Amino acid sequence: MTNLYFEELQIGIRSAAGPYSLSKEEIIRFAKQYDPIPRHIDEELAAQSVFGGLTASGSHTFAIYILLSGQLQPHFQVLMGLGWDELKLTNPVRPGDALNLEMTILELRASKSKPDWGIVRNQNLLRNQKRETVLECISTIFVARRPDANASPR
Amino acid sequence: MTNLYFEELQIGIRSAAGPYSLSKEEIIRFAKQYDPIPRHIDEELAAQSVFGGLTASGSHTFAIYILLSGQLQPHFQVLMGLGWDELKLTNPVRPGDALNLEMTILELRASKSKPDWGIVRNQNLLRNQKRETVLECISTIFVARRPDANASPR
Repeated sequence: MTNLYFEELQIGIRSAAGPYSLSKEEIIRFAKQYDPIPRHIDEELAAQSVFGGLTASGSHTFAIYILLSGQLQPHFQVLMGLGWDELKLTNPVRPGDALNLEMTILELRASKSKPDWGIVRNQNLLRNQKRETVLECISTIFVARRPDANASPR
Repeated sequence: MTNLYFEELQIGIRSAAGPYSLSKEEIIRFAKQYDPIPRHIDEELAAQSVFGGLTASGSHTFAIYILLSGQLQPHFQVLMGLGWDELKLTNPVRPGDALNLEMTILELRASKSKPDWGIVRNQNLLRNQKRETVLECISTIFVARRPDANASPR
């Protein structure tokens, strides 16, 4: 298992995780608690909607994205997430879908306030088994710098 | 229960929902499935972390934000969410927190491609019982136009 420090990252590096397979039961269970609207919990009403069937709640899709983020290979020494921009749900997620995450580094910079942290901006694409993007966003995360990198400034 | 069409909205209108009270058990149950890292699922290890105790997963906080969005009063005739920008988790969410959502309209415009849809941009603040913001973001949503508003263009 690779665990990359900030110094080892480069713009354009890609990491990947998945697949995560989603059942109808999981879609309904999540939505009953966190987004109980007919198109996520009621098969018959969902079939009559513009989506033509049950779809996962957007927050459920986001939760699967976060879960897969923690399983990315190569893996970074992530300290925490800082924020997300341009988050979009570009296609519905349906029962039986298998989702894969691909993350690509867009930007790297040192943190001014925290000398042992680096700031990394990434493009994230969560896709289904047909390679349709279901969620995309730009994430900003803190990644640890290699401990010896700060030990003795020259 | 108020259900506002696009024509009835104005910049600056505020809507609110909550509180949503979060238990330790719910934090651990959610994170075990969708973000199983020590600071969200292991009380002892979390106590030793920089947060000094268990905190909710960011995707759990996002799910509560989406749940409260569906309970906002006054309520809009929301067709669907289009996306989110500048999503930030500004403070940790802890067991026993009671979260309230406040949404303020920033921008209104008609959809060019869908004459019966309006596009609404909103600022969202999810706050705890101490009025600390735990999640903030800009949401863009589609809101239905009043059916008679399109019936006979003059």
